[in-house]
Amino acid sequence: SDRYSLLILPGDGIGPEVMAEVVKVIDWFAANRGMEFDVSHDLVGGAAYDAHGAPLSDATMARAQAVDAVLLGAVGGPKYDALDFSVKPERGLLRLRKEMDLFANLRPAQCFDALADFSSLKREVVAGLDILIVRELTSGIYFGEPRGIHSDDNNPDNEGGRVGINTQRYTSGEIRRVARSAFELARKRGNRVCSMEKANVMESGILWREEVTWVHQQEYPDVELSHMYADNGAMQLVRNPRQFDVIVTDNLFGDILSDAAAMLTGSLGMLPSASLGAPMANGRPKALYEPVHGSAPDIAGQGMANPIACILSFAMALRYSFGELAAADALEAAVERVLADGVRTADLMTPEGGRPVGTAEMGDRIVAAL
Amino acid sequence: SDRYSLLILPGDGIGPEVMAEVVKVIDWFAANRGMEFDVSHDLVGGAAYDAHGAPLSDATMARAQAVDAVLLGAVGGPKYDALDFSVKPERGLLRLRKEMDLFANLRPAQCFDALADFSSLKREVVAGLDILIVRELTSGIYFGEPRGIHSDDNNPDNEGGRVGINTQRYTSGEIRRVARSAFELARKRGNRVCSMEKANVMESGILWREEVTWVHQQEYPDVELSHMYADNGAMQLVRNPRQFDVIVTDNLFGDILSDAAAMLTGSLGMLPSASLGAPMANGRPKALYEPVHGSAPDIAGQGMANPIACILSFAMALRYSFGELAAADALEAAVERVLADGVRTADLMTPEGGRPVGTAEMGDRIVAAL
Ligand SMILES: CC(C)[C@H](C(=O)O)[C@@H](O)C(=O)O
Ligand SMILES: CC(C)[C@H](C(=O)O)[C@@H](O)C(=O)O
Repeated sequence: SDRYSLLILPGDGIGPEVMAEVVKVIDWFAANRGMEFDVSHDLVGGAAYDAHGAPLSDATMARAQAVDAVLLGAVGGPKYDALDFSVKPERGLLRLRKEMDLFANLRPAQCFDALADFSSLKREVVAGLDILIVRELTSGIYFGEPRGIHSDDNNPDNEGGRVGINTQRYTSGEIRRVARSAFELARKRGNRVCSMEKANVMESGILWREEVTWVHQQEYPDVELSHMYADNGAMQLVRNPRQFDVIVTDNLFGDILSDAAAMLTGSLGMLPSASLGAPMANGRPKALYEPVHGSAPDIAGQGMANPIACILSFAMALRYSFGELAAADALEAAVERVLADGVRTADLMTPEGGRPVGTAEMGDRIVAAL
Repeated sequence: SDRYSLLILPGDGIGPEVMAEVVKVIDWFAANRGMEFDVSHDLVGGAAYDAHGAPLSDATMARAQAVDAVLLGAVGGPKYDALDFSVKPERGLLRLRKEMDLFANLRPAQCFDALADFSSLKREVVAGLDILIVRELTSGIYFGEPRGIHSDDNNPDNEGGRVGINTQRYTSGEIRRVARSAFELARKRGNRVCSMEKANVMESGILWREEVTWVHQQEYPDVELSHMYADNGAMQLVRNPRQFDVIVTDNLFGDILSDAAAMLTGSLGMLPSASLGAPMANGRPKALYEPVHGSAPDIAGQGMANPIACILSFAMALRYSFGELAAADALEAAVERVLADGVRTADLMTPEGGRPVGTAEMGDRIVAAL
């Protein structure tokens, strides 16, 4: 069979703990399903800064470019808050996204039935929620030039004498390719795409709307397309999130709206993500998989973090990088079975819920359920 | 007593209907509390475009500059969707904000006890919610240059051949003045400010954080200040909105986060806003008041819109422009009393809720309760 190469970047905080459980899952598929994985490990974020003075070394970057899929845990923590912008842990993640050209960030927001009561929203508003946010990940205000903080001393009206600048810049090509990803994904789901921008205020939003519409008319007329201003989108996500199927939006709106959507589900410790780029020579897309949650420094090192988001990120790798659809389904089903059996990490417990399991036990239970 | 000058701009959609009820309230205060109002009326948005070919005429702009307070209904509607960006209804509103230099947009998100069950969030998460979002309103990506859509024909990688650009630009002075507004307001409430940006990704966010911190240390050390990334802010607003007192953030984040916060309350038809600038010669701030809801074209002209958000916007005018604190309190209390009596417009009804009142009857009941 094919060999699958993986680079594991556990990162900071709870990253290493949850990634250890993913390794158990990888080993299970290797031992029991005849898959062959070439797994290597490296540093990213604060851990890389501590070792090399940079949140991603050139050597790690080169390895990430060469593998089929990168699995990332989480980056950041209070220890690194005072670092200069250019070497903050986040810059390691942003460099991976940019240099691997991972333009389509897939963030499913699913409400797991066993956990619907964890949402701050009413059960009847979120039960069965299953939406997919496709966020543009390599352009927009995250990367546009010019950017920086400059002195503005010649401006007598500017108390403080500085100015901070960032640039939102989108080309039509950048918009079209992520729109295509969204339409393709919609065809495999509910066949509906809602595109969000602020075309009433921003010219880059007008271009966004026009290019998404063009791709729709030329290539995906069978998919239902609607447009919504991003502020209304935030409202509608809170009011009635199940009205959506696939949402496509830019880097910055996607950052905020996908976090809001994730929180709707009440299952932040459960949500995976995939960041995909163009196909490589072997036909597989450039790819990075990571949980939506952060490094959670407050609980790091205590063995209590929930590894499910990271494990489900590996399920996305099985699906989108390796085409192992049956294996991906089996892994997701194993997670659901363990939850249905009442196995819960601390974040999934109500006060009267009994004894929580730790990170390692949750991983073991999921492997056993496979 | 003083005379108070008001310019009423009802605008589009339900704007004229809800504003008619505000006029009743103004008349009541004139007749019964010895206040003297100079009230004039004019056009904004699509209504102004229909009359003058521009969403705000120069003459209207000059009148807005000369009055104590502008009351605005709502702008926009499907009839104007195809108009060129430069004459869209929204441009009229943005011109008012910019030329009047209304840098501090106050958006309270309150959950009215009688209406807590309307929220899509659980009652225990939103009951008693009372937060205030202070949004910077005259700068940032809404107004920064360069901006526009250009051809990018020399770039062979850009399928489509265009590029859309907007610029996020903040001066330290712009950040400091809105931070001061937030700290001042916090002192009259819970004495806590949370500032939101993306300082982990945007240099303008770093400047934002540094300048807010500077104002805090120099001038408001007695107020509690915290910082949060805007994506986490969106999450926390959904998870546990009552953790906040005053939130201060930039124009674009404020647009999105305040709409999400408004929707949390379940009372979109109830929420007012104030946009304040620098003091004029008479000591009153430049000011514009408007409901948070939009022009609601689907129900316009049917006499069923909820006028409370617009009436409460006038209460904010009484408080912030005229210093009529007792009158503002009385008007807010009248609204609460009418709600407590079970009087409901259609948007505030559950299916089994009985007969809704229309726009005019709701206005009459509030006047009667005064
Ligand atoms: C860590 C940070 C740079 C990142 C972002 O802003 O994109 C994170 O919030 C995310 O959504 O993946
Ligand atoms: C109508 C539109 C231009 C406006 C904005 O984006 O500021 C609106 O959404 C608001 O929040 O007042």
